Amino acid sequence: MAEPGPSDTSSAELALRLAAASAAAGPWGEVSPGDRAECLRTVADRLDAAGDELIPLALEETHLVPGRLSGELTRTTFQLRLFAQLLEEGSQLEATIDHSDPAWPPGPRPDLRRLLVPLGPVVVFAASNFPFAFSVAGGDTASAWAAGCPVVLKAHPGHPRLSARTGEVVLDALDASGAPEGTFAVIYGEEAGRAAVTAEEIRAGAFTGSLAGGRALFDLAASRSTPIPFYAEMGSLNPVFVTAGAMRARGDEILAGYAQSFTLSAGQFCTKPGLLFLPAATMDDGRLSDALDPHRTGAPLLNEHIHRGYVAQLQRLRDHPGVRTVVGDAESTGTEPTPTLLATTVPELLDGRDQLLVECFGPTSLVVGYADDEELLAGAKAFGGQLTAAVHGEETDAVVPDLVAILAARAGRVIWNGWPTGVSVTWAMQHGGPYPATTAPLHTSVGTAAIHRFLRPVSFQSVPDRFLPAALRDANPLGVPRRVDGQAGDR
Amino acid sequence: MAEPGPSDTSSAELALRLAAASAAAGPWGEVSPGDRAECLRTVADRLDAAGDELIPLALEETHLVPGRLSGELTRTTFQLRLFAQLLEEGSQLEATIDHSDPAWPPGPRPDLRRLLVPLGPVVVFAASNFPFAFSVAGGDTASAWAAGCPVVLKAHPGHPRLSARTGEVVLDALDASGAPEGTFAVIYGEEAGRAAVTAEEIRAGAFTGSLAGGRALFDLAASRSTPIPFYAEMGSLNPVFVTAGAMRARGDEILAGYAQSFTLSAGQFCTKPGLLFLPAATMDDGRLSDALDPHRTGAPLLNEHIHRGYVAQLQRLRDHPGVRTVVGDAESTGTEPTPTLLATTVPELLDGRDQLLVECFGPTSLVVGYADDEELLAGAKAFGGQLTAAVHGEETDAVVPDLVAILAARAGRVIWNGWPTGVSVTWAMQHGGPYPATTAPLHTSVGTAAIHRFLRPVSFQSVPDRFLPAALRDANPLGVPRRVDGQAGDR
Repeated sequence: MAEPGPSDTSSAELALRLAAASAAAGPWGEVSPGDRAECLRTVADRLDAAGDELIPLALEETHLVPGRLSGELTRTTFQLRLFAQLLEEGSQLEATIDHSDPAWPPGPRPDLRRLLVPLGPVVVFAASNFPFAFSVAGGDTASAWAAGCPVVLKAHPGHPRLSARTGEVVLDALDASGAPEGTFAVIYGEEAGRAAVTAEEIRAGAFTGSLAGGRALFDLAASRSTPIPFYAEMGSLNPVFVTAGAMRARGDEILAGYAQSFTLSAGQFCTKPGLLFLPAATMDDGRLSDALDPHRTGAPLLNEHIHRGYVAQLQRLRDHPGVRTVVGDAESTGTEPTPTLLATTVPELLDGRDQLLVECFGPTSLVVGYADDEELLAGAKAFGGQLTAAVHGEETDAVVPDLVAILAARAGRVIWNGWPTGVSVTWAMQHGGPYPATTAPLHTSVGTAAIHRFLRPVSFQSVPDRFLPAALRDANPLGVPRRVDGQAGDR
Repeated sequence: MAEPGPSDTSSAELALRLAAASAAAGPWGEVSPGDRAECLRTVADRLDAAGDELIPLALEETHLVPGRLSGELTRTTFQLRLFAQLLEEGSQLEATIDHSDPAWPPGPRPDLRRLLVPLGPVVVFAASNFPFAFSVAGGDTASAWAAGCPVVLKAHPGHPRLSARTGEVVLDALDASGAPEGTFAVIYGEEAGRAAVTAEEIRAGAFTGSLAGGRALFDLAASRSTPIPFYAEMGSLNPVFVTAGAMRARGDEILAGYAQSFTLSAGQFCTKPGLLFLPAATMDDGRLSDALDPHRTGAPLLNEHIHRGYVAQLQRLRDHPGVRTVVGDAESTGTEPTPTLLATTVPELLDGRDQLLVECFGPTSLVVGYADDEELLAGAKAFGGQLTAAVHGEETDAVVPDLVAILAARAGRVIWNGWPTGVSVTWAMQHGGPYPATTAPLHTSVGTAAIHRFLRPVSFQSVPDRFLPAALRDANPLGVPRRVDGQAGDR
């Protein structure tokens, strides 16, 4: 039997953590970008070194496989180092200088210098399905730290002991690298999480999880007497559209890729392809079923809560009279669910969108047959905000330009001839999208741009050089890129 | 007697306007940046040409003086042209390209290309006190158009006929420059405004006005089934802190500047200096009163609603037992209020902050005496989010570094030896701040960065060149600045 995890954080203990985070906000925000980068690298190094201890804990608490978990830890520490690199470059400050100009058309312009400063303490809610990359020292934490914000991390109840141990490694690393006390804390329990969202000390929140959970916390954040930004990433259907041309050219390859993508980690990704649109004429249940053959082994889901939710949502999909089961048997809802593949048509989908266009977190996906390109486009238009949408097509397919435009209007990431699972950590990544994919369509939770969620602008008007933040001084001692008098590229 | 203004927009008419805005979102977003810049310039040219017709209307409806109004119109058209210039440069797209990299540490990286796209139709609420620059074709409208978003403009009831006529000039200009129908509409009435905030077609809102009004609309926007960003700029106290050194060196000049700044346009600026902190030892009621001498003429406020609010709030300030009246008589609350100057001390202010730290929109300001630098800093810490905070000091004053740091943590703009009134339209301007100055601390409503309120990111993964937005194609046909493989400066 597993050891018990940490107990819920009491309100008295939470108050101490919040006060410490508040006290750390000034000093941590003032740590030079180079020193802050070193702190992030030290955390990354210590986490890498602790992998042999952390991965077995994660295995025990999440049922995810070792290769996946070690890859996820690599991604997590890479992410910390990429933010360190960004800090040393300095573009995230958006330093902008307008020298005074007596001839400025609307009237004499004073010397104005603008840069981004940290928002203050951030509460981060860890995710169930990424015990490293979206948890204690994951992307939200890394980007908030990089911005100069202390982080109060609400651990996910699905991996409490891993969270506690990871938190210890992080705190030791921060301590060793000289970060102010209060730069980081781990808290436990739903009540403590909600209390943190409404606490005066907290200036922003970030969350990865369900629509219901994210929306409830967003509502709390918006209803405060002083509202705060709340960045919730709440999942997605990630529809994939296969053109008739692509199906003709490489149908088997596409179906094989699909089967692999939607069953990866038992379908427990916010980027799982939840729907696959196929030309109805090419939909052959035998071929779909065959494609799933290499992936039919059952696997336990992350935890009992997720298992219950999966079984219930799968049942709702199967209850729709226009949905038939292509693959699925008694074991598909057992303790180690085997993948389920469902099928319907575009008219049925449009008619039953309230029931069918709902995320089913786990190893299930829905194949949707379309009669012609018109139906394909009608299907694409049925979607609200998505993290991703994908097209498998040929460059000569007439439908593609319209399809890409429709999807770009709805999704944060549009993928060509690929699968949505696998979110690379880069400068150009966008992991977000219009509601209900997130509560903040202007932002991303993956990639270097994620730092902008935790920064706000301040302008300094005619302030003497010695009182300016270093990045705005004439001599540019930090060597950050700056836009000067409207021209980018000064350094 | 003035002619009647336009009647309130009916729900049927609003539905038509919203549908048109929704239909225009795609086409207007796809207009090339150069063509969109031309549209903005045409609007600016037509507004300049219509000045002789518009300014008299504004005079009649707002009681603002001709010089102020013509200056405001100049600022408004300059603003449109500055956004046109930004569009032609292209940095607002934040185009970012990461080429595929099989050796990317966390796993092979696909080709990823990111840029910002328009959010969709925006509802803009015009302000009472800037009938041009924060109204029909003001900064919110200009920045939303520049982003590629259609605008539904809720006219301010304080200047309905000016709004209607400005709207006609704008619509003619947009029509002449080939903008899609639905790119702009003016609506009237509180009910239509609220209905627009909750309308499915609307994807963001912007507002300049009171705390109560802005918060109510923000709450509506956040409580939608699909929440939208709502950018409310809700005013500010704009405290000014004068060091003992500055008071010794140039006391008379500072008091003269203060008297001019807080009485400008009858104190009806969101940047009016609402409080002036002075060394108690230098506070001499005769000197303060003398400084006000050149500005004692009464003037009607913008409208009856604002007049009533002003008189009530002034009374609340005067009712505080720790507040004394330095200048103020029966005429100070008449139909053409003369300026009022009140005085208190830091301990009284801290004790009565709920009553005294409230914006009084009109020609009143509160002088606060401080005993020593410790009290000065305690006074500075009493403030919540502000649009601006100013310091009048000498570079050798020991208190200045701490004071600047405290103010930068609370305000969007920190001013040295200057006054908050007068908001220059530039790249480095920040007109915003933490709540309650605004509902969106990450954003500005003045300056080129205001465009970012209406743009969201989309990444394209492995998408063939021909299907990419022009700004992301290999050949960079628009010549926009791009960050490529982490390096800024490609063009």
